[in-house]
Amino acid sequence: MSFHSDNETGVAPEIFAALAAVNDGTVMPYGNDQLTASLNESLSRLFGTEVNAFLVVTGTASNVLALSTMTPPYGGIYCHEKAHILVDECGGPEFYTGGARLLPMTGADGKLHADDLAVVLREQRDDVHYIKPSALSLTQVTESGTVYTPEDVTDLCRLAKDKGMHVHMDGTRFANAVASLGCHPADITWKAGVDVLSFGATKNGAIAAEAVVFFNQTLAQDFSARRKRGGHLPSKMRFMAAQFNAYLENDRWLGYATHANRMAEKLAVELNEVPDVEFSYPVQANLIFADMPQAMLKAIQDTGYQPDYWLWENGRCEVRFVTAFNTREQDIEQLMKVIRSL
Amino acid sequence: MSFHSDNETGVAPEIFAALAAVNDGTVMPYGNDQLTASLNESLSRLFGTEVNAFLVVTGTASNVLALSTMTPPYGGIYCHEKAHILVDECGGPEFYTGGARLLPMTGADGKLHADDLAVVLREQRDDVHYIKPSALSLTQVTESGTVYTPEDVTDLCRLAKDKGMHVHMDGTRFANAVASLGCHPADITWKAGVDVLSFGATKNGAIAAEAVVFFNQTLAQDFSARRKRGGHLPSKMRFMAAQFNAYLENDRWLGYATHANRMAEKLAVELNEVPDVEFSYPVQANLIFADMPQAMLKAIQDTGYQPDYWLWENGRCEVRFVTAFNTREQDIEQLMKVIRSL
Amino acid sequence: MSFHSDNETGVAPEIFAALAAVNDGTVMPYGNDQLTASLNESLSRLFGTEVNAFLVVTGTASNVLALSTMTPPYGGIYCHEKAHILVDECGGPEFYTGGARLLPMTGADGKLHADDLAVVLREQRDDVHYIKPSALSLTQVTESGTVYTPEDVTDLCRLAKDKGMHVHMDGTRFANAVASLGCHPADITWKAGVDVLSFGATKNGAIAAEAVVFFNQTLAQDFSARRKRGGHLPSKMRFMAAQFNAYLENDRWLGYATHANRMAEKLAVELNEVPDVEFSYPVQANLIFADMPQAMLKAIQDTGYQPDYWLWENGRCEVRFVTAFNTREQDIEQLMKVIRSL
Amino acid sequence: MSFHSDNETGVAPEIFAALAAVNDGTVMPYGNDQLTASLNESLSRLFGTEVNAFLVVTGTASNVLALSTMTPPYGGIYCHEKAHILVDECGGPEFYTGGARLLPMTGADGKLHADDLAVVLREQRDDVHYIKPSALSLTQVTESGTVYTPEDVTDLCRLAKDKGMHVHMDGTRFANAVASLGCHPADITWKAGVDVLSFGATKNGAIAAEAVVFFNQTLAQDFSARRKRGGHLPSKMRFMAAQFNAYLENDRWLGYATHANRMAEKLAVELNEVPDVEFSYPVQANLIFADMPQAMLKAIQDTGYQPDYWLWENGRCEVRFVTAFNTREQDIEQLMKVIRSL
Repeated sequence: MSFHSDNETGVAPEIFAALAAVNDGTVMPYGNDQLTASLNESLSRLFGTEVNAFLVVTGTASNVLALSTMTPPYGGIYCHEKAHILVDECGGPEFYTGGARLLPMTGADGKLHADDLAVVLREQRDDVHYIKPSALSLTQVTESGTVYTPEDVTDLCRLAKDKGMHVHMDGTRFANAVASLGCHPADITWKAGVDVLSFGATKNGAIAAEAVVFFNQTLAQDFSARRKRGGHLPSKMRFMAAQFNAYLENDRWLGYATHANRMAEKLAVELNEVPDVEFSYPVQANLIFADMPQAMLKAIQDTGYQPDYWLWENGRCEVRFVTAFNTREQDIEQLMKVIRSL
Repeated sequence: MSFHSDNETGVAPEIFAALAAVNDGTVMPYGNDQLTASLNESLSRLFGTEVNAFLVVTGTASNVLALSTMTPPYGGIYCHEKAHILVDECGGPEFYTGGARLLPMTGADGKLHADDLAVVLREQRDDVHYIKPSALSLTQVTESGTVYTPEDVTDLCRLAKDKGMHVHMDGTRFANAVASLGCHPADITWKAGVDVLSFGATKNGAIAAEAVVFFNQTLAQDFSARRKRGGHLPSKMRFMAAQFNAYLENDRWLGYATHANRMAEKLAVELNEVPDVEFSYPVQANLIFADMPQAMLKAIQDTGYQPDYWLWENGRCEVRFVTAFNTREQDIEQLMKVIRSL
Repeated sequence: MSFHSDNETGVAPEIFAALAAVNDGTVMPYGNDQLTASLNESLSRLFGTEVNAFLVVTGTASNVLALSTMTPPYGGIYCHEKAHILVDECGGPEFYTGGARLLPMTGADGKLHADDLAVVLREQRDDVHYIKPSALSLTQVTESGTVYTPEDVTDLCRLAKDKGMHVHMDGTRFANAVASLGCHPADITWKAGVDVLSFGATKNGAIAAEAVVFFNQTLAQDFSARRKRGGHLPSKMRFMAAQFNAYLENDRWLGYATHANRMAEKLAVELNEVPDVEFSYPVQANLIFADMPQAMLKAIQDTGYQPDYWLWENGRCEVRFVTAFNTREQDIEQLMKVIRSL
Repeated sequence: MSFHSDNETGVAPEIFAALAAVNDGTVMPYGNDQLTASLNESLSRLFGTEVNAFLVVTGTASNVLALSTMTPPYGGIYCHEKAHILVDECGGPEFYTGGARLLPMTGADGKLHADDLAVVLREQRDDVHYIKPSALSLTQVTESGTVYTPEDVTDLCRLAKDKGMHVHMDGTRFANAVASLGCHPADITWKAGVDVLSFGATKNGAIAAEAVVFFNQTLAQDFSARRKRGGHLPSKMRFMAAQFNAYLENDRWLGYATHANRMAEKLAVELNEVPDVEFSYPVQANLIFADMPQAMLKAIQDTGYQPDYWLWENGRCEVRFVTAFNTREQDIEQLMKVIRSL
C-alpha cells in the first residue's frame, strides 16, 4: 500500500473472476450482449426506480459525457473549486459540452453549501451577454473526503431545480459515500433531485468500469450518440459489463467501500492520538487529510509511502492518505509505526 | 464462431494471463507505470525507428485522437467512402478536430488510388471560402478486406506530402495487413510516409487496447492533453499496457493475424469452388465479401451464423465473413458443410 | 457592372438614406432599440404569420447560426452538392453546430429533388455508429440560378418532416425567388414547411444586413445566446435594423429583385440568339450560366468584365453572369455588343 | 447624451462621409478591394512596425477570433475578473478556441498586476490533468476606466512570455488609452510584448468596424480561415474598410478619443466638488465610476439619463458615466446641474 490513491490498486478477485467467466465464445459487440443489457435492470433494482445506465471506462468520460447532456454550449456549470471536473480533467467538460463554462464556488469542508448557492443564484445575471448557468455538479464523496447528507443534496438540488438547472453527481467514490451515510442509494440521488449519477467502480475494485446512471430519462436520450462519438463505446463491452455486474452482485460495491472506509477510520483514530497531527476535514469516507510537520511527511516518504501532499511555509504540510477495498489492518499498523516512531 | 466480426471474440489466453500478472500490488496510475513506459521502447524496436506511442481503449478513440493532431478545425481529411472514420464513428472525427470535414473518395477494391488522389488534389480549391484539406487517412486492412502494398502507401503519401498534408493510417487490422504482405511493419508506415498509425490489438486478441503510434514526433506533442481531455486516460493503465505488451511479445500480434488470414484463405479457397458464389474483392486478409444467392445466406443464418450482409434486388446478396485469431479449421469446415449442402 | 456577383454592388440609395436617418442621438445598443424591435412585426406582416427574426451582417452567419438551432453535434444536414454552406463557408456549419456533418446530394438544375431525397431517406442508416441526419437545407434561388416552386419545397419538406428533421432555407437571394415565382413569400416558406429562413438583403441593395426568420418558434429560443456567443450581435444594431427596415418598406426588397431578374431575363433573351451559346440551367432569377467558346469569354474579359467561369477541356467554358438591383439596360446592351461583335 | 455607453452614439460625420464615398461602382468583395488592402500599410505606419490586420464588425468577434489563434482547445487564458471576454461575450472565447478556459484574476483598479501574475504563474500546475495556460488578455482601457502604462504592459508581457504564453490586448477603447497616456501606440503594444491587438473603432465614432492587428505574424497565419468560418467576412467589406480608413486618416481615432477623455475629465473635476460623491477608481479615460447616494442616482435617472449602476445595501450606489467622441461641454453642464441641484 502506498496510500497515494485508490486508483493504484489492482482488481478485486471476484471482479477478476468475472472477466474470465465471459471470455468464452462469440458475443455481440458494442453492448448488444445480454450482460450489458441486464445492467439497467440491476441498477434499477438497486436504486428502486427505473434508470437508464451506460458504461464507460474512465471517470472523466463518465463525468463529461453526463455533463454534455445537461448544458448547452453557452451554458454554465456550478461546481466546487476543488471539483475533479474543474481541476483534473484537462478541460474535458468544456470539450464535451461544446464550450460551456465551469463556475467554481468555495465551500467549507470541500462541500457546496445551500446558503452560498442561494446567494450565487440570486445574484446570477440573466442577459444575453452572459452565459446561461444550466447545471450543478456535486462530488460525492467530495475531494476533501467529506460526504453530503441526503438533506444537503436535497437542499442544493431544490435550489438548482428552482432555477431550471439539472444536477449531476460525480460519484467516483459513490459507494464510499453510501457506506459512510448508511443510507439507501436513492436517498442521495434521485429522491434528493439528482438527474444523473457517475457511479464509479474503478477506484473500488474494478479495472475500468464506470456507469453513467440516468434517473432523468429525457437527458438519457442522446447519450448513446455522444458516447460513441466520444470514442467511448468499447467493442468488447461484455468485459466492462462483467466487471460492473460483479461489482453489483452480492452488494460487493458496498462491501468493498465499507471496508475501505473502516480502514480510513482506523487510521484516523490512531492519527488522532499523534501529537502535532490535525485533520483538515472531518474524516467521513476513505480519504484523510492530515496537517502535520514536514519532518513527519519526510519519514513517511522515506519508508516508501507515496501520499499526496502540499507543503506550507510554516514547516507544516497537508498529507492525503487514501485507503481502498484491499487495504489491510496491518498496512495501517505499519504506517502508524513509522509515524509514531518520530 | 459467428463469422460476424473479429470484435466478437474473447481474449487470447496469453493476453489474459498478462492481466493477472500485473494485478498485484500498488502501481502508479495514469500511465506512470514501468510497463506503459516500456511500450515506446518495444514499439520503437518493432518499427525500427523511434516512435512515441499512447494507449487508448477503442479504435474510434485511436483514430479520432490521431486525426485531431493533424488538422485544424477548418481542415479537411481525405478518406475512402467506406472508411470507418466516415461511416462508423458517429462524427467522432468532426468532434475531436473541432469541426474538420471528411472528404470521401471512391476507389476500386475499397482502396484509395494514387491516380485518383492526384486528380482530386490538382483540382482542390485554395481560397478562404473553402476548407483546407490537411490530412489523408488510409485504412489498412481496408474495410473491403484488401491491403495496400508498400508501393501503394508510398505513392499516396508522396502526393499528400507534396500538398503539405499529414497521413494517418487506421490500422485496426494492421497486423493482418503485415501478415498478408509479409513485409516489415516499417515498409507500410514511416518508410512509406505515414505520420501516425492507429495500431489495433482489440480485434486481434486483446480486450481493449489500441496504440496510437507517432512516427512524426512533432504531431505527438499535444497528444497527452488531447487524450486526457477526451476522457481516454484510464487510471489503471497498467492493465491496458499489459495487454499490448503481451500482444507484442513473441510477435504474438503477427502470429494471431497470420492465423486469422490463413483461416480466411482456407474459407476463400473452398468458397471459390462453390457455384454461384463470387468474391466482391480480392481476399487478402481476414475479411471475405462473397456475392451469393439469398437462399444461401438464409441457410447460413438458419444454422446460427451471423455474418453481415447486404441484400440486392436481383435475389442475390453480399455476405461478409470475418475470421479471427481463434477461428479453427473445423469452424470453416462446418460453415462450408452448410454452404455445400445447398 | 462587372457581372461578377451581386455582392459587388454598392448600396441602394433608399437604404443608404435610412442610415443617415438613424444617426442622430443616443439609442440603446445591442438591438434594444425600437427599430430593431419593430422588425418582428414587419416581417410577421410580410409573411402572414408570427415570426421571430434576428439580424446578422453576413449570409454565412445567417446560415450557420440557423443550422446550429436545428441539429445536434452528432447530426447531419442534407444539402445540394453546390450549396454555399458546403462549398463557400469554410466549415462554418461544422463550427457552429459543434461538428455536425453536411450530407451532399446531387440534383439536376442545382436543385434537390423529392424523388432523390426519398431514396436517400429510405436508405438512411439508423444506428449508433452513424451520425443522425437532422436537417435539410434548401437554397432559394439555387446556386445554379434556378428556383424551387412552392410544390417543390412542400414535397421536400414533407419528406424531411416525416423523418423528424427540420428545414432551413438559405435565402441569400430569397427576394429574387419570390420575384421569379410571383408567389406570396409564405408559399415557399412556412406554408411549405420551412422552419427557418435566412432572408438576405446584402446582395440586393444593403451594405450588410441579413435576417434569420424563425417560423418555428421553438427553434428560436436559444438563437440570441448563439448569436452573441458567435460575435454576431453588433452594438450599434440600429444601423443594421435601418437597412432591413428600408428594405422591407414599400416592398423595395421585391422591387429591387424584380428589376435584377428582369435584367437577367433581358440578357438571357439576347444571349439565346447568339450562336454557340447555350444555357447550362434554366434562367429563372438573376443568375445566368452560359456555355460558350473560350474565345468569347476572353473577349468579354478583355473588355473589363469579370464574370466567374469554369474552363472545359473541349475549348468551351461555363460563364456566370449576375445581375443586380442596379444593373441598367445599357449595361446589358454594352455586354451584348461585345459578345455579338465576335 | 445618456451617459450609458459609448456604443449608443451615432457615427462621426467624417466616417459617415467615407461610406458615401465608396458607394459608387462595382468593387471586388470579401476584402479583395484596394481600400481594405491599404489598411495593412496604414496600420503598419501608425504602429511603426509591420502588422497584418483584419477587419470584423464587433468587438466580441475581434476578441474571440484573436484568442483563437493563441491557445489550443486545452488551453487557458488569464484575464481580469471584470474582463469583457469573461463576463460579456456569452462564452465566445470558449466557442472560438474549441473549449479553452478563462482564468479570472482579481486586481486593484480593474487592472492585472505583475506581482499577482508572478505568483499565479509560479504556482501554476504543469501536468496532464490540468489545462495548459497559453495566453494573457489585457483590457486597455480597463472595464474600470483605468489605463495600463507602458511599464505595466511590459512587465505583464514579460511574465507571460517567460511562460511561453501569448498576449492579447482587448483595445475596444485603445484610442482612449493612447490619448490618456500621451504615448506612441507602439509603447503599449508590440514594444511592450503584445502579440495581437483588438483595435476598436465602433465605440469611438464608427458604425461597426474593428481591426484585429497582428504584431506576431505567425499567429496571423490562420486568421483568414477562422474569420470566414466564424461568418465574419462581410462581402461588401469596402464599407467596413472605409470606416476604419477614415478613422485612421488625420489621426481622427486619437482626436475623437482625446475629446471623449477631456469630457470625462471635465465631469470628474466637477463631480469631485460634489459632497457625498467619491470615485471608485482613478479617472484616466472616458469612464467614470462614482459612488453616490441612491437619491442622487434617482434624480439623475428622473431627468432621463441612463447610466449603468449597482445598488449597495447602505443606501449608496456606484454609477458609471461614459463620455464619447460627440459628448458636448453643455451635456456635462446639464448633467452637473441636476447633480448639484440636490
